[in-house]
Amino acid sequence: MGNYRTLRRQAFELFEPELGGRVGNYVDWFIMALIAANVAAVILETVDALAVSYGSFFHYFELFSVVVFTIEYVSRVWSSVDNPDFEGPITGRLKFASRPLLIVDLLAILPFYLVVAGFQADLRFLRALRLIRLFRLLKLARYSRAMQSFSVVIEEKKEKLVLAFSSNILLLVLASSVMYYIENPYQPEAFSSIPRAFWWGVATLTTVGYGDVHPITPLGQFVGAIVAMLGIGLFALPASILASGFIEQAGDDDPSGQYCPHCGEKLE
Amino acid sequence: MGNYRTLRRQAFELFEPELGGRVGNYVDWFIMALIAANVAAVILETVDALAVSYGSFFHYFELFSVVVFTIEYVSRVWSSVDNPDFEGPITGRLKFASRPLLIVDLLAILPFYLVVAGFQADLRFLRALRLIRLFRLLKLARYSRAMQSFSVVIEEKKEKLVLAFSSNILLLVLASSVMYYIENPYQPEAFSSIPRAFWWGVATLTTVGYGDVHPITPLGQFVGAIVAMLGIGLFALPASILASGFIEQAGDDDPSGQYCPHCGEKLE
Amino acid sequence: MGNYRTLRRQAFELFEPELGGRVGNYVDWFIMALIAANVAAVILETVDALAVSYGSFFHYFELFSVVVFTIEYVSRVWSSVDNPDFEGPITGRLKFASRPLLIVDLLAILPFYLVVAGFQADLRFLRALRLIRLFRLLKLARYSRAMQSFSVVIEEKKEKLVLAFSSNILLLVLASSVMYYIENPYQPEAFSSIPRAFWWGVATLTTVGYGDVHPITPLGQFVGAIVAMLGIGLFALPASILASGFIEQAGDDDPSGQYCPHCGEKLE
Amino acid sequence: MGNYRTLRRQAFELFEPELGGRVGNYVDWFIMALIAANVAAVILETVDALAVSYGSFFHYFELFSVVVFTIEYVSRVWSSVDNPDFEGPITGRLKFASRPLLIVDLLAILPFYLVVAGFQADLRFLRALRLIRLFRLLKLARYSRAMQSFSVVIEEKKEKLVLAFSSNILLLVLASSVMYYIENPYQPEAFSSIPRAFWWGVATLTTVGYGDVHPITPLGQFVGAIVAMLGIGLFALPASILASGFIEQAGDDDPSGQYCPHCGEKLE
Repeated sequence: MGNYRTLRRQAFELFEPELGGRVGNYVDWFIMALIAANVAAVILETVDALAVSYGSFFHYFELFSVVVFTIEYVSRVWSSVDNPDFEGPITGRLKFASRPLLIVDLLAILPFYLVVAGFQADLRFLRALRLIRLFRLLKLARYSRAMQSFSVVIEEKKEKLVLAFSSNILLLVLASSVMYYIENPYQPEAFSSIPRAFWWGVATLTTVGYGDVHPITPLGQFVGAIVAMLGIGLFALPASILASGFIEQAGDDDPSGQYCPHCGEKLE
Repeated sequence: MGNYRTLRRQAFELFEPELGGRVGNYVDWFIMALIAANVAAVILETVDALAVSYGSFFHYFELFSVVVFTIEYVSRVWSSVDNPDFEGPITGRLKFASRPLLIVDLLAILPFYLVVAGFQADLRFLRALRLIRLFRLLKLARYSRAMQSFSVVIEEKKEKLVLAFSSNILLLVLASSVMYYIENPYQPEAFSSIPRAFWWGVATLTTVGYGDVHPITPLGQFVGAIVAMLGIGLFALPASILASGFIEQAGDDDPSGQYCPHCGEKLE
Repeated sequence: MGNYRTLRRQAFELFEPELGGRVGNYVDWFIMALIAANVAAVILETVDALAVSYGSFFHYFELFSVVVFTIEYVSRVWSSVDNPDFEGPITGRLKFASRPLLIVDLLAILPFYLVVAGFQADLRFLRALRLIRLFRLLKLARYSRAMQSFSVVIEEKKEKLVLAFSSNILLLVLASSVMYYIENPYQPEAFSSIPRAFWWGVATLTTVGYGDVHPITPLGQFVGAIVAMLGIGLFALPASILASGFIEQAGDDDPSGQYCPHCGEKLE
Repeated sequence: MGNYRTLRRQAFELFEPELGGRVGNYVDWFIMALIAANVAAVILETVDALAVSYGSFFHYFELFSVVVFTIEYVSRVWSSVDNPDFEGPITGRLKFASRPLLIVDLLAILPFYLVVAGFQADLRFLRALRLIRLFRLLKLARYSRAMQSFSVVIEEKKEKLVLAFSSNILLLVLASSVMYYIENPYQPEAFSSIPRAFWWGVATLTTVGYGDVHPITPLGQFVGAIVAMLGIGLFALPASILASGFIEQAGDDDPSGQYCPHCGEKLE
């Protein structure tokens, strides 16, 4: 019982960033590397030549990954009761298991067990499950400061981002509708409806411009030219707002420009 | 008579942002939702499959919308005399009705009544009227802080925006004319005139690059390359000016970056 | 003689921004409008339908424009001796006539006289001359604050712009050369030489992406993907530098942020 | 012996920026011009018409360049012992020769000697060697402040650039994988595997949009539209960070924007 408690305590400390020590560090790096290898496997498995030659390797690697991730998940849940926030053998663990990061951990292994349990309906479903393994990437959120940076920036600039995005959507709706009306009689296929005209609108306003759909009438080209020129102004707004928030935040590790010129105190 | 005045006063308060109370709030949200649903209807109605299956639904929804918007319009005009600025039963109401937002409200319902009154000339006209319903979106201007933000930014940066835009137009005119002269003998179709060469110019300078028109002669490609490299510099200017104005303004409602939190002095 | 001097003095004052008064203002606006109309004429004349229908109108309008511009040019040169900087009936006027703005004025009318004098070699040369009329746009430089803004910004940021542009050229040369080496064996037409590969390089690095030339080999696509991702970073630099200079300058009409927070003096 | 030492000393001073004097300056400019001419030669040699007409010129120019670069390299290494950091006739010179800039110098001439020594395997190898001459451009690093500017900016913003780039890679992996799953059944050629779908992902997220690969299913176009709109936000981040670092640095050598011209206090 003492052993059991010691083991649980050790497992608990292993997964706590401040308590894990050197071994905890190694475990973190191992799991991150395994996640990266999993993503690489999902990507490479779609290359036919590799899928044929290394099919069994991919299969055993998936087995190995699921075993490791399952041990990680069970250890986390089992040892969570050592955290004063999650006391109580069942209620505490359930509370712990319903946190977003733990749900991601569960989703990263659940599909495998569903397939093993015989829940697969057809091949298409199986292929989707393979892809879902990509969402193991989300497990990285636990270790990533990037996600935190982004969520801070998006939180700070939320109001302006919503404003910029809704202006974009408005411009997209108006531009695509007008273009549908102009081009539909001449290109009934490409501009068969306003939703289909959105495809042209997005390609133009983001300046991607695949070229599969574009106005061919003089009036359509005139409107399209104006839309394109407005587009680079409005569709750059969210990017600029995001970038300005990101760059302001970047200032945090650059002490110059951080202090009030009047009283000398550190700002923000 | 007392009843009549009370009712008119209630209608007046309903549409005044500060006086409407909770009911006024519900009315605002209802009208905004109805506008959004109208835009969705206009968009979806152009999908043939939906137009066939749900034609009558779209028809009745349009009827319902026009009735609501008509009631809203009439109530606003009728109750406007309770505003000291628009006194006088006829002159006051006419003055009120000629304000831009009210004209938008009228335009949002007028086409329907024109059609009902038998003014439609042909099918093409009818289709245009359907599309005009999209401009009901402009009714949102009343509720939107985004429009105000934009108009403030554009007002502030007007001079620089005009400068940047006129430089863009100048570059567009020069680039398209030179390209017309170079490419016309080899692509008499795509570069049949300078106005048609504008289509290439806009696609290149905005970096949309559909690919339907592009220089094929070595000299044309050389000039096109220089134009493209200048283009990303000059055509990004309006976007950057707009974004900088927008980001500066963003600071206005975010006091933390405007005043030193320690000494309270305004920063920069 | 007194009359002659008075007339010359009047002509001189007419073209001096500070001395011209209301009539000088009208003359300025008239010449600016005439330049705009000339540009419109050059553009519209290339539309075959218009050239046929309104050919004689375009012809007479050109005659009229040349007459006006010639009177303007002669008046400026003739009256220049009233400026103390250009004394001396011949040396002063020659010195005045060799200033850049006056040379532009001369070039705006010279081609016409060359044609009249029978110097045209062939039709191709004639067409080029028509286009050269577009450079009458440069006459606007005299009235334009935009040109001044740009030259100030470019002067201020010269060093960084040169740096950014040379990095771009370096990346373009390296990317195109490597892509030539990779793709030449598989697309001997599109990548027939490094200079031709530049066309792909510019289209990719500016993100125009016409799509007429793109790598088709896996290695070429891998290199192309890296080049495209580097490109948006490096090729946005000149635009950002230009925009930041332009926006800083924009601060001039916005007094806040213009004063030193330490001593309160106006900054630059 | 005195002569030998004087000569070595002169050679040493010639290549030291602070000691070279006017002659050293001429040598620097000559080597820079030769590097530029070499790059031009490599580029022009790939144009068949020029390669045929001027083949022997290109050949002798290459010989001449290698001779000059060899003399430069040998002089640098030979005279390096005059630098107190690299004392000792053999160990000092070896230490000097293993510095990055000297290795670049060696790589700029080595391929020529390998070919002369008969190491060439086949024509393909020979062509690669020709191209490698382009890396003589790297010799410019010695003279270039641009490289230093970039390395300073990249060093300063390293953490944020890594963050932005890894977010981009993440978005690219997720977008391409999802698109592969959606489009593969309908375009088995263009979306044959996730690595191939990356080509679409990069073209879309960088907004290059060649148009050779794009979704054709409604769901694929819907996802593609969202990816494109997210892409301009995220893929502009590295460019914005780089530009902001570059623009901040620009201020460093432009004191007017760094210090108040009136009281001399540092601004911001």
